[in-house]
Amino acid sequence: MRWYEHQCVDDSAIISSRVRLARNLSPYPFPSRLAPPAAAKAIQEMQAAVLKPQAEITNGLTFVDLSHVDLTWLYQLSERHVISPAMANKAALRGLIYNNEENISIMLNEEDHLRIQAIMPQQNLDEAYEAAAALDDTMAAGLNYAFDADFGYLTSCPTNTGTGLRASYMLHLPLMESTGNLKAYADLITKAGFAIRGTHGEGTEVLGGIYQISNQLTMGKSEEETISALKHLANQIAGKEFSLRELFFKEYRHETEDAVHRAYGILTNCRKIGLAEAMKHLSDIRLGAMLGLLRCNIAAGTILALMINILPYNLQEVMGQTARDVRHLDVMRAEYLRKSIS
Amino acid sequence: MRWYEHQCVDDSAIISSRVRLARNLSPYPFPSRLAPPAAAKAIQEMQAAVLKPQAEITNGLTFVDLSHVDLTWLYQLSERHVISPAMANKAALRGLIYNNEENISIMLNEEDHLRIQAIMPQQNLDEAYEAAAALDDTMAAGLNYAFDADFGYLTSCPTNTGTGLRASYMLHLPLMESTGNLKAYADLITKAGFAIRGTHGEGTEVLGGIYQISNQLTMGKSEEETISALKHLANQIAGKEFSLRELFFKEYRHETEDAVHRAYGILTNCRKIGLAEAMKHLSDIRLGAMLGLLRCNIAAGTILALMINILPYNLQEVMGQTARDVRHLDVMRAEYLRKSIS
Repeated sequence: MRWYEHQCVDDSAIISSRVRLARNLSPYPFPSRLAPPAAAKAIQEMQAAVLKPQAEITNGLTFVDLSHVDLTWLYQLSERHVISPAMANKAALRGLIYNNEENISIMLNEEDHLRIQAIMPQQNLDEAYEAAAALDDTMAAGLNYAFDADFGYLTSCPTNTGTGLRASYMLHLPLMESTGNLKAYADLITKAGFAIRGTHGEGTEVLGGIYQISNQLTMGKSEEETISALKHLANQIAGKEFSLRELFFKEYRHETEDAVHRAYGILTNCRKIGLAEAMKHLSDIRLGAMLGLLRCNIAAGTILALMINILPYNLQEVMGQTARDVRHLDVMRAEYLRKSIS
Repeated sequence: MRWYEHQCVDDSAIISSRVRLARNLSPYPFPSRLAPPAAAKAIQEMQAAVLKPQAEITNGLTFVDLSHVDLTWLYQLSERHVISPAMANKAALRGLIYNNEENISIMLNEEDHLRIQAIMPQQNLDEAYEAAAALDDTMAAGLNYAFDADFGYLTSCPTNTGTGLRASYMLHLPLMESTGNLKAYADLITKAGFAIRGTHGEGTEVLGGIYQISNQLTMGKSEEETISALKHLANQIAGKEFSLRELFFKEYRHETEDAVHRAYGILTNCRKIGLAEAMKHLSDIRLGAMLGLLRCNIAAGTILALMINILPYNLQEVMGQTARDVRHLDVMRAEYLRKSIS
């Protein structure tokens, strides 16, 4: 079972917590400059450093050489944030180490030699950091990291140099978005050294009111300071979303109930639906579940799985079908949602 | 029970048939020139002419002096086409004779002294004409009609002079409308001496794809010729609608199913809904019922009752509540539709 498939009580704006650590091996050039034989050798070394030690954290991890896997699966992994979109599109000489839950993954020879990632449901940023750090410690024992006493961890792109840490929350902010309050927070977020954007990174469309907030600075601040600042900021934003939700419901009770129930009516009856519209309705249903408006088998905590499973490649996986075209994908999406909600 | 409340199998574009005869009493000026005492005297005469004879056609008819009735009820009658909107707004010195089914009504001292009306469900224009003509014959026996050998029946407005007949069908033409085919028929309709418009007469908005088609000529054509021509024209239009429906369903099966089921999902779940949107969805559900797409308690033949009952004044009647404002009306409409469909 994947991490997002577990039922959970979830009435917070914070959907999930993610930590990523970038590391490189000092004897090798950065992956973009790495010749095929050296790339293969680096992968062997890194694989051994993770999988040889019989540590608790490395239990259940599997290695896959991405040169020889189905492209469809790579796109599915990318939609699930297990690998980056860049990696899905250029998988040769690259490797992946991951667990069945898919909340632990290590990309080998992506932009950096090592990208160690841990995802946790809800507000568990400390736990995510601890998991990534434990993996990092285990690997550090068997590898020679590129580390500079002044700069910290050296990385392929200077924006990661220092801690090599990217900590992020996935937030559901439908009211902040619809009331325009999010714009008022933009300055605060930027000044605190963070960025807010769609869930698939820079330049991606925001769907269903789901945002990702992550640190932009990797130098001058320790890992603990970065994580603490992100927690503080996210709590502020989540608290504002919560109070807007209460206020809005009080002021526009009929409108809120109407939007929530229409979303339910459409998702349980439609015969074709695009991704953006489906995400909007799932967002309304999540809001309704949190406000106690819906009496159906959908809890707020299960919406995330639906939001992932309606992405194009994951949808085809859960439906066990290959879509002929985008129109067919919309029909499949409607079928999946009808089956899953009702 | 009112005529439109009977369940009926109904898969035609023709929803109902209506006939109206305009008559005037020669000893009196037209109603707009009628002094109060004369108006009262005319009403007494007309009332006696209808209600005294013990004919089958006059059985169950009731007289009401509209000077002393609740305005809300007049608006309800107007929405149900029992009286004209003009009569609802100026009821003093006017009378109404009608039956419980409300498919027979005689307006007294409206634009003309007598407006005799018969409505029948579906394609029953002959039956409607026969009912109106039987009433006309009964009344003619006791009254002195204003009739000219050259012009025919004299009326307050010259557009009714001659037969005094207005024959009409109410048609459900969602495909003719959405595919733009209705425009192609506009010329044909006009040249044949007919007009097509919204169901509440000239200048009213078309809602839910429901149109009224009626004759414009009352001179130079007998009653039988007018009715025969209307039947021919309506059959052409209804036939075109039917073939478009089949064609469209074949070509755009998913889109049609999607629209029908979304309409069902919205009407069974919404918490507030405006009239135009509700009419659009009821139109889609009627289409779906005719295409055999919906398995719910809604047959095409019951949609008409819903379409009438969601009009502002009738909605308040069926819900037994007075709306505080338009917003409240939308909430009541959603509640009524949820209860009625589901």
